[in-house]
Amino acid sequence: MLSKTKLKYIQSLSQKKFRLQEGLFIAEGPKLVNDLLEMKNAAIQEVFALKEWIEDNRKVADSITVVEITSIELEKISQLATPNQVLAVAKQFAIDENSEVKSKITLALDNIQDPGNMGTIIRIADWYGIDQIICNNQSADMYNPKVIQSTMGSIARVKVFYTELSSWLAKQKNIPIYGAMLDGEDVTAIPKIKEGIIVIGNESKGISDDVLKLINKKITIPQKGKAESLNAAVATGIILSHLL
Amino acid sequence: MLSKTKLKYIQSLSQKKFRLQEGLFIAEGPKLVNDLLEMKNAAIQEVFALKEWIEDNRKVADSITVVEITSIELEKISQLATPNQVLAVAKQFAIDENSEVKSKITLALDNIQDPGNMGTIIRIADWYGIDQIICNNQSADMYNPKVIQSTMGSIARVKVFYTELSSWLAKQKNIPIYGAMLDGEDVTAIPKIKEGIIVIGNESKGISDDVLKLINKKITIPQKGKAESLNAAVATGIILSHLL
Repeated sequence: MLSKTKLKYIQSLSQKKFRLQEGLFIAEGPKLVNDLLEMKNAAIQEVFALKEWIEDNRKVADSITVVEITSIELEKISQLATPNQVLAVAKQFAIDENSEVKSKITLALDNIQDPGNMGTIIRIADWYGIDQIICNNQSADMYNPKVIQSTMGSIARVKVFYTELSSWLAKQKNIPIYGAMLDGEDVTAIPKIKEGIIVIGNESKGISDDVLKLINKKITIPQKGKAESLNAAVATGIILSHLL
Repeated sequence: MLSKTKLKYIQSLSQKKFRLQEGLFIAEGPKLVNDLLEMKNAAIQEVFALKEWIEDNRKVADSITVVEITSIELEKISQLATPNQVLAVAKQFAIDENSEVKSKITLALDNIQDPGNMGTIIRIADWYGIDQIICNNQSADMYNPKVIQSTMGSIARVKVFYTELSSWLAKQKNIPIYGAMLDGEDVTAIPKIKEGIIVIGNESKGISDDVLKLINKKITIPQKGKAESLNAAVATGIILSHLL
């Protein structure tokens, strides 16, 4: 049973302002919720689930707060077109802005605006074993429900943090910085890399000027037809599949 | 000035039922509308635009019906979160289901459900110079406003048609049929191809059983991290970048 106060509280977390204030976010569906539950420092605070999910997850239900709700209640708190058994309220991940690059390959996002693209890029990073993504402060919020859902659980395995990107890049010494643009070297013909930062620019404007100055390896995806550009997440997938 | 009847008529075209009945679809924004206007057999019937678009497109405005509307009217008929100057009502493309494969490379979509994925795949095809996509009848409707917008104009250059996919594939003789799955040959290690049909399966279920039987070249994108799968459009981009 869900109180009116709780219902409104959960609904408020669809807004960035309240997510930031509370340090929380929403994750939905068995795949995503179970991936988050498997994290070492479990981020999940509370789970709201239908009877069927609770019966399938008896062990989990013993160790954290699980509230059984009806499908009508789930529909009220869900952000999904088709609500899917379970919704969790989770703590935002701890961020250490001063942490050095740990993974040898890092993705850097410069003004990625579309939440679907952002989530899909996090999923691609996870597919290619990249555990860290640096975003400039103007990129889409990683805790936006659409970002979280598009990661398909990868949000539990990839660290995403926000910073003033050009200053951060300027501090990275002796690391090649790759940038995708229209006039770079053919990415399908470059030898595979073991180390580097790969910058992906905005969906329509590409990489911003202050970041562009710091790119020391310009790359491009050869165009064979007439489309003017590729979707940013698709471009990320193609670049990683050739460089890694 | 927009009459109430016209307004309701345009709004009705956001539904597949009415689009099918009228043989029409909606396209929005200068990029998409101008790409459609450049087609040989111009599909556009009527344009509803702000004064600024009309002034930038005087020549066009002379040859087809252009109705000047206010931004408040545009907001009422637009499907976009941020309406963008112009909305066009266009005729659905003529389809010849019996036409043979003209391009040497054809994409075949088996149950692609998400309109954003469908539109992005059409855009990728256009980037790689593939001019034909065959979809099974259960795939997302190419005239769905979200599909049209995600193609970023490529809908004007790539022919998309719907058919009973497994019967159609069974009729294609002496053409290699590639299918993306988890246990195929490494796509990054296959020699480039000049001819073939490339099948992309459903976002969560992959290629359906009746289509799977007809695949004679199984391919896969090597996974290096922990994500269970890639987004269908991203996978399409990666596969084409290696095969073509």
